[in-house]
Amino acid sequence: MRLKQGASPGEVIFGIHAVRHALLKTPEDCLELWINEGRLKGPGFAEIIQLATRAGLRISRIPVERMDRMSKGAVHQGVILERRLSERQPPADLETLLGTQAPPATLLLILDGVQDPHNLGACLRTANAAGAAAVITPKHETARLTDTVRKVACGAAESTPVITVTNLARSLEGLKQKGIWIIGTDAVAKQSLYETDLTVPLAIVLGGEGSGLRQNTKQHCDSLIRLPMFGAVESLNVSVTAGICLYEVIRQRGRMV
Amino acid sequence: MRLKQGASPGEVIFGIHAVRHALLKTPEDCLELWINEGRLKGPGFAEIIQLATRAGLRISRIPVERMDRMSKGAVHQGVILERRLSERQPPADLETLLGTQAPPATLLLILDGVQDPHNLGACLRTANAAGAAAVITPKHETARLTDTVRKVACGAAESTPVITVTNLARSLEGLKQKGIWIIGTDAVAKQSLYETDLTVPLAIVLGGEGSGLRQNTKQHCDSLIRLPMFGAVESLNVSVTAGICLYEVIRQRGRMV
Repeated sequence: MRLKQGASPGEVIFGIHAVRHALLKTPEDCLELWINEGRLKGPGFAEIIQLATRAGLRISRIPVERMDRMSKGAVHQGVILERRLSERQPPADLETLLGTQAPPATLLLILDGVQDPHNLGACLRTANAAGAAAVITPKHETARLTDTVRKVACGAAESTPVITVTNLARSLEGLKQKGIWIIGTDAVAKQSLYETDLTVPLAIVLGGEGSGLRQNTKQHCDSLIRLPMFGAVESLNVSVTAGICLYEVIRQRGRMV
Repeated sequence: MRLKQGASPGEVIFGIHAVRHALLKTPEDCLELWINEGRLKGPGFAEIIQLATRAGLRISRIPVERMDRMSKGAVHQGVILERRLSERQPPADLETLLGTQAPPATLLLILDGVQDPHNLGACLRTANAAGAAAVITPKHETARLTDTVRKVACGAAESTPVITVTNLARSLEGLKQKGIWIIGTDAVAKQSLYETDLTVPLAIVLGGEGSGLRQNTKQHCDSLIRLPMFGAVESLNVSVTAGICLYEVIRQRGRMV
């Protein structure tokens, strides 16, 4: 990745959704745009070029092989953007976000050990669509916020804060003290999602691929719930579970129109 | 892929969930199991080896590089199974499945142009979990039921029929004649999912990645609905949309415990 002389390293954003979102939300931090000559007519390109031109960016047309190298083989859809790492936004933390008492409509998504970047990206996208205030992940045993995650998240990573915590159990206790109800999913829980009051301030905790919630995490939940399952598969993809749970919250809270 | 002399070509199944499911459901059609020496202690291995032994299969321990070649680079999690292509199950068709008048609890998922194998697999897994009777896809412009799709579907492809149709518009009209209500999703629809009666026999139609439903498909829907969106992203992943819609059907039908 070529960088301007003397500039601090920027972050690389790729994919039509993520690039478009960065150009719309933080044009002042965008540094340079690379596009692929062969894909200039694809959907979304015209708007991206217009936004980049308006922001005064240098736009370079380069061959697809170079783009593949820049995105380290991840799907870039023919657009790559370099953006300055902004220092104006401090890393999100729970205190700043929630204060001492969580607002009544608080909705958080907590991911306990989601290690697949595609799953983390899909969860971010879903949490953002559902209006969750933040996604919380333990620092260890979780995929980091890489370019691939940002790409899969379709712009959500630039909009919904991802808060990493070093000790998830302690953070769950901290959330309870702010008046947040902690609901974990568990395939063998007695209570179903649909029997649960989701109108209170709450955090929904989902486990990683295959293994579900850690035992220690379960012990810090106020209640454990399950989704009804009618087929041969034993579980749903974590982002699908996130969607079903978060949208049931939306429905119960009467925000469904 | 090595095949027994004179045997007809089998299908290759890989990944812990899919292999386990095949061994449980169709042990008589399973031909051979390959496992990776380095991953023998992973979760699920013991059960797979037990099932394969019980079915009288030959079990070969091979290096990971050979497994990668056998799975053509897709994630195999250290287990690959060859299964005879069974001739006992005829290809599913709508007539056989639904008869002339669809049962009252009919629930179908229709995918209009889902081209990404991971998305198709995730949709199959979700449809299976929600108890949908079948997944219907147009023959053209849809990912085929490859090994990768089966792997991502976690066993759902062996349990929920996937029906391919040559003319989706004509099939939608055929479904209507059987008493099935056709509901399509559309980002700009006036009606929300939660304002829609989902207790009638129905088929939910979702569009492919990015582009949504084709205009011609929309015209054959009885109603168009949208999901409420509260964030920066413009849409949800198709398997997440499938999960939210199908589970709202389950809730409205009172099958939520």
